[in-house]
Amino acid sequence: MLTAADYQHLARDLVAPDVWDFIEGGAEAERTLAANLLAFDRLRLRPRVLTDVSRVDTAVSLFGRRYATPVGIAPTAYHRLVDADGEVATARGAGVADALFVVSMFASRTIEDIAAASSSGLWLQLYWLRHRDLMCSLIERAERAGYGAIMLTVDVPVMGRRWRDMRNGFAIGGGVAAVNIDPEVMAPAHLRGAGESAIARHTAQSFDTTVTWADLAWMRARSGLPLVLKGILTAEDARLAVEHGVDAIVVSNHGGRQLDGAVASLDALAEVAEAVGGACPVLFDGGVRRGGDALAALALGAHLVLLGRPPLWGLAVDGAAGVAGVLRMITEEVAPALALAGRPALARLARPGERMPPPAQRGAGGDDR
Amino acid sequence: MLTAADYQHLARDLVAPDVWDFIEGGAEAERTLAANLLAFDRLRLRPRVLTDVSRVDTAVSLFGRRYATPVGIAPTAYHRLVDADGEVATARGAGVADALFVVSMFASRTIEDIAAASSSGLWLQLYWLRHRDLMCSLIERAERAGYGAIMLTVDVPVMGRRWRDMRNGFAIGGGVAAVNIDPEVMAPAHLRGAGESAIARHTAQSFDTTVTWADLAWMRARSGLPLVLKGILTAEDARLAVEHGVDAIVVSNHGGRQLDGAVASLDALAEVAEAVGGACPVLFDGGVRRGGDALAALALGAHLVLLGRPPLWGLAVDGAAGVAGVLRMITEEVAPALALAGRPALARLARPGERMPPPAQRGAGGDDR
Amino acid sequence: MLTAADYQHLARDLVAPDVWDFIEGGAEAERTLAANLLAFDRLRLRPRVLTDVSRVDTAVSLFGRRYATPVGIAPTAYHRLVDADGEVATARGAGVADALFVVSMFASRTIEDIAAASSSGLWLQLYWLRHRDLMCSLIERAERAGYGAIMLTVDVPVMGRRWRDMRNGFAIGGGVAAVNIDPEVMAPAHLRGAGESAIARHTAQSFDTTVTWADLAWMRARSGLPLVLKGILTAEDARLAVEHGVDAIVVSNHGGRQLDGAVASLDALAEVAEAVGGACPVLFDGGVRRGGDALAALALGAHLVLLGRPPLWGLAVDGAAGVAGVLRMITEEVAPALALAGRPALARLARPGERMPPPAQRGAGGDDR
Amino acid sequence: MLTAADYQHLARDLVAPDVWDFIEGGAEAERTLAANLLAFDRLRLRPRVLTDVSRVDTAVSLFGRRYATPVGIAPTAYHRLVDADGEVATARGAGVADALFVVSMFASRTIEDIAAASSSGLWLQLYWLRHRDLMCSLIERAERAGYGAIMLTVDVPVMGRRWRDMRNGFAIGGGVAAVNIDPEVMAPAHLRGAGESAIARHTAQSFDTTVTWADLAWMRARSGLPLVLKGILTAEDARLAVEHGVDAIVVSNHGGRQLDGAVASLDALAEVAEAVGGACPVLFDGGVRRGGDALAALALGAHLVLLGRPPLWGLAVDGAAGVAGVLRMITEEVAPALALAGRPALARLARPGERMPPPAQRGAGGDDR
Repeated sequence: MLTAADYQHLARDLVAPDVWDFIEGGAEAERTLAANLLAFDRLRLRPRVLTDVSRVDTAVSLFGRRYATPVGIAPTAYHRLVDADGEVATARGAGVADALFVVSMFASRTIEDIAAASSSGLWLQLYWLRHRDLMCSLIERAERAGYGAIMLTVDVPVMGRRWRDMRNGFAIGGGVAAVNIDPEVMAPAHLRGAGESAIARHTAQSFDTTVTWADLAWMRARSGLPLVLKGILTAEDARLAVEHGVDAIVVSNHGGRQLDGAVASLDALAEVAEAVGGACPVLFDGGVRRGGDALAALALGAHLVLLGRPPLWGLAVDGAAGVAGVLRMITEEVAPALALAGRPALARLARPGERMPPPAQRGAGGDDR
Repeated sequence: MLTAADYQHLARDLVAPDVWDFIEGGAEAERTLAANLLAFDRLRLRPRVLTDVSRVDTAVSLFGRRYATPVGIAPTAYHRLVDADGEVATARGAGVADALFVVSMFASRTIEDIAAASSSGLWLQLYWLRHRDLMCSLIERAERAGYGAIMLTVDVPVMGRRWRDMRNGFAIGGGVAAVNIDPEVMAPAHLRGAGESAIARHTAQSFDTTVTWADLAWMRARSGLPLVLKGILTAEDARLAVEHGVDAIVVSNHGGRQLDGAVASLDALAEVAEAVGGACPVLFDGGVRRGGDALAALALGAHLVLLGRPPLWGLAVDGAAGVAGVLRMITEEVAPALALAGRPALARLARPGERMPPPAQRGAGGDDR
Repeated sequence: MLTAADYQHLARDLVAPDVWDFIEGGAEAERTLAANLLAFDRLRLRPRVLTDVSRVDTAVSLFGRRYATPVGIAPTAYHRLVDADGEVATARGAGVADALFVVSMFASRTIEDIAAASSSGLWLQLYWLRHRDLMCSLIERAERAGYGAIMLTVDVPVMGRRWRDMRNGFAIGGGVAAVNIDPEVMAPAHLRGAGESAIARHTAQSFDTTVTWADLAWMRARSGLPLVLKGILTAEDARLAVEHGVDAIVVSNHGGRQLDGAVASLDALAEVAEAVGGACPVLFDGGVRRGGDALAALALGAHLVLLGRPPLWGLAVDGAAGVAGVLRMITEEVAPALALAGRPALARLARPGERMPPPAQRGAGGDDR
Repeated sequence: MLTAADYQHLARDLVAPDVWDFIEGGAEAERTLAANLLAFDRLRLRPRVLTDVSRVDTAVSLFGRRYATPVGIAPTAYHRLVDADGEVATARGAGVADALFVVSMFASRTIEDIAAASSSGLWLQLYWLRHRDLMCSLIERAERAGYGAIMLTVDVPVMGRRWRDMRNGFAIGGGVAAVNIDPEVMAPAHLRGAGESAIARHTAQSFDTTVTWADLAWMRARSGLPLVLKGILTAEDARLAVEHGVDAIVVSNHGGRQLDGAVASLDALAEVAEAVGGACPVLFDGGVRRGGDALAALALGAHLVLLGRPPLWGLAVDGAAGVAGVLRMITEEVAPALALAGRPALARLARPGERMPPPAQRGAGGDDR
């Protein structure tokens, strides 16, 4: 076991084929899914030399909390599909790595159980539902359970057409459920029913497609937690996010699962980071599989990088230990990559629009930025 | 049956090989045919978020008629090659989808029969023949039968060298004929005769290769119907079309069947749309196979997108129901694609040369453009 | 038999493998050989519509002689390797097509025999030999035999490393010889000897590697024939050629047989044509296999296009008739390509640095340029 | 045996698989390793014609010594892994070719033995060790043995993650050792121990990761030998190197063995050469396999090109004779490539930022630069 891809290869044999397609697949012809990965192959890094890299620091701080690694876990639904303990195991694994774990609204374990198992930072991810009382209740539970932020996903007004799931007639079942959501509210018959669009129909019935930027004020008023928007791909929307006072944004195309043909996450990152101009942290997901990928995203302006599929591979293979293993592997690749790039601290990475200043002379009194 | 490509795969087994080559093939080495498709793979969309997409409207209006879908049927010849009812079945299918159907001059059913079967908009496509009386007669019949426009194809002064047809010695036969054209006028012996260039020779004998922009005035004087030019690929010709007062143009390279090496339709679209500058509607064909492709063309400036081969796939598989199926599939992909792109109405798509303005705030009184 | 490539496929089975490698191969890793072909695949044409293409004229005039086709035969050595009649058959084939034939200094038939068989234009190609008397004698023989120009190849100071020939130990033999060259002068032992570098050693011993632009005056003084330089790939050298008063240049990388890694011919053409600025005709060779390729080169500024390998394919398959067949096929593809491009005459093709003017209105009095 | 790749194919069968992986492999997914080679395929050369190339001179001078070839041997460790005589044989081969040989700090033969076998120029390569006394001692020994320069490698603060070695559990063994380094100083247990990271752990324990530009003064004070920095990939670091008075730099990404994703060497060369602006010589390594590759690097601004893997292929196949063979092959390709490029001397190659001036007229008095 050397790389996250090693977990992927093992996981493929351990997970039911339709669940595997649900995890690995993207929308339609999977153009964007492929583009996410290819963007990293295209990118070329410009390493600097003769900087003091004796103390490489991969820690990042967000909203007053420090994480040992710039790599966290993106929200993905129904972890019990691949492990009996589900998100509780994921939280334990994240804790081992001292990594951020963003819990999905469609987690298959309760917000409270996950919090009890967690020793690192937790955030709660939400979609905007028609049923606002349910959202309020989830936010309150997250606050009580000590979650550190609310991450609102804004790229799912409708669900992307995922041909694999449609052909498989994929539906969540086998005792796995979105346990944090009142089944009466969420049209359980549809959720449980088989059929090609069980999840998509459920989305169409439950999600509020009328939401606009003006509605963010309502959510702000519900909670004092930082509000993070996930799914920004353009400078225009990044500026709107800053104008509306969000606390962080996530550059993401939902792992290529929503608009097929959408720009690769990495290709959108520089544009977004420049538009934000440091007004708030920029997070990133989309195709990170190795420490070098994380470095690339960090160098293009991301403050923290989220992993979607890789923690699920680890979870499927070895439960909490697998999650920790994947996070550890990628983090252990980030550190030497930073050293080889001549940037011992994340803050030393050149940001878009800046020319990297000459590295500090040793003994000249620390970081030059 | 999930995508138009599913119809394609079925149709391949149902259609005689030489007819299949006639439908699917392009000119010479099929560079442009391939380029048409690859252009969509290269394109990347920039989706916007937090717009109200609760009412996605895919309707378009052209020349005073409203269509439920921005996807219509491009003119293709001899539909009876793949279905006994031919264009009558196609018209029924288009009617189910409330889609524009452009009937080919080389239709294998009469203009009047097609009109009788149609419940959506029909246009008539014409090549410019040496025999102008025949053109006049076709225009008059179209007017009487309620056709909404004349679409003049301008990219076939001679027929492209289609190696597949030449190697197959392809000729129209089996009781299929261009029934709207007086066989005495159109050199029937050549049309019916076998041989590698039956259609090409027929074209060379019947088509007027001397036609220039100045001749458009003659056609204008023949009919009060809107005049649409099909086959524009350059800004220069787009400007000439506007100067000569045409009512709409179609960006098209004839499905890669004419000049091999010609620019991909999608790659020409932005240039043409910018040159037209809104002076008349711009239609598009060339490689659209999915709703996302249609969205891409619409976003680059097309007002309506035409499909050439996909309706024939549907027609071959299931007659009128197949045509309706293909149109429905692609239209049903356009709607969520518009939602995922954050543009609930076609008019909200950014046009070339414009920066997309910030989306309207919900409740601010409707469309901001 | 539909395309030149059909001749190629047949010829491959008719020609000895080492001769085939000699004909088809390029230098070293054949990067430039591949680039020559790929350049045509990359290029995209912008066709114009509604021009009068009833009279497509593919004729070109050079140095006072008119050719029916813009496609001629580039100089290649030893045609008797593939046909017993050698260049005499090639000349007959060129005559059938009324095409220019540039006879190689290393022809395997005499200058006079070739002239006797020719009914179209002939030029003589020369390398610059150490033995200037021999060059004088060849020029005088060409003048007496009615050749129309001298084409001096300037891209072979040494021979490119052609791995195929080196691995094959290829040497000219079997009674084939450079009959126009005094064997005593040309180191016959080496020419006839087997071994990996027979031709290359021969080149090294016979060719004058000291020649510079200043030497052109010597050649000018030897003959009143037009002087054409073959092997120009840069704007700098094109300007030098004009300054030194040459009568035409040929953009060529010797079919990818000299400097491997050199720019593709087609990619160099626009730069050269712009530098020449109409001061003299620009010819082109390198990768033309179809009429559309010829059109592309003509549109980028070439006045006439030369074919290297394709006439040898025709010659190997069917002697003079095969040469004529290849020339006819490609010419017959040029005419419809010009019509489809909306440029009925070569002079109407847009040249680099110009915007194509609006096509002439029909009846407005002929060509607008 | 025609090309260096022929040696590679033979060597693969002669070398133990794990040693072969150690030689041929790169870091992680080997993106940069592949990019190094692909960069040469992408590059296109612009050959000039009609220059006097009768005397092609491939000699270069560096630090007062003349080398017959612009191709030298890059420092690579442990030559005894593939040949019993190790670096002594390599030195003999380099001597036959009159080529520069840069001896690795991790040579498996003593500095003095190598010097005794050498008849061409030798330099000593060093990493910056925590144990500075050892470095001083190596420098002194190199000076006494007549080495011409110290090449300090600056791109290995830590070792790149070489998956092949990690999966193989590769460790140096079988009696091969870094004989110039006191085993007590270099943690011999770790060096000798098997395990996936034997070399990497050894690097981490022995190399000084705190070194910065300011430390170069210490090394300068230790020796009067020229100081060469190896591993520069950016204009920023090139300028710093010039400011710190280094005597030459080597553009290199360590053969793709350090930061995976780093820019291809060839793609970094022009930027670095322009930044240096002639202030010191620029050397190059990374992907050179043929004379044409060397020409490309020389044309982009390199004064001398180093080969990493190819001499090891030659050494594995045929000892000193194999090393000489590889160097001779590539040099013999450089000379005709220079002639075909129309630049008979290295100094005549166009440098970045310059337009190549018109070549000198013959007899006009020598080189025009």
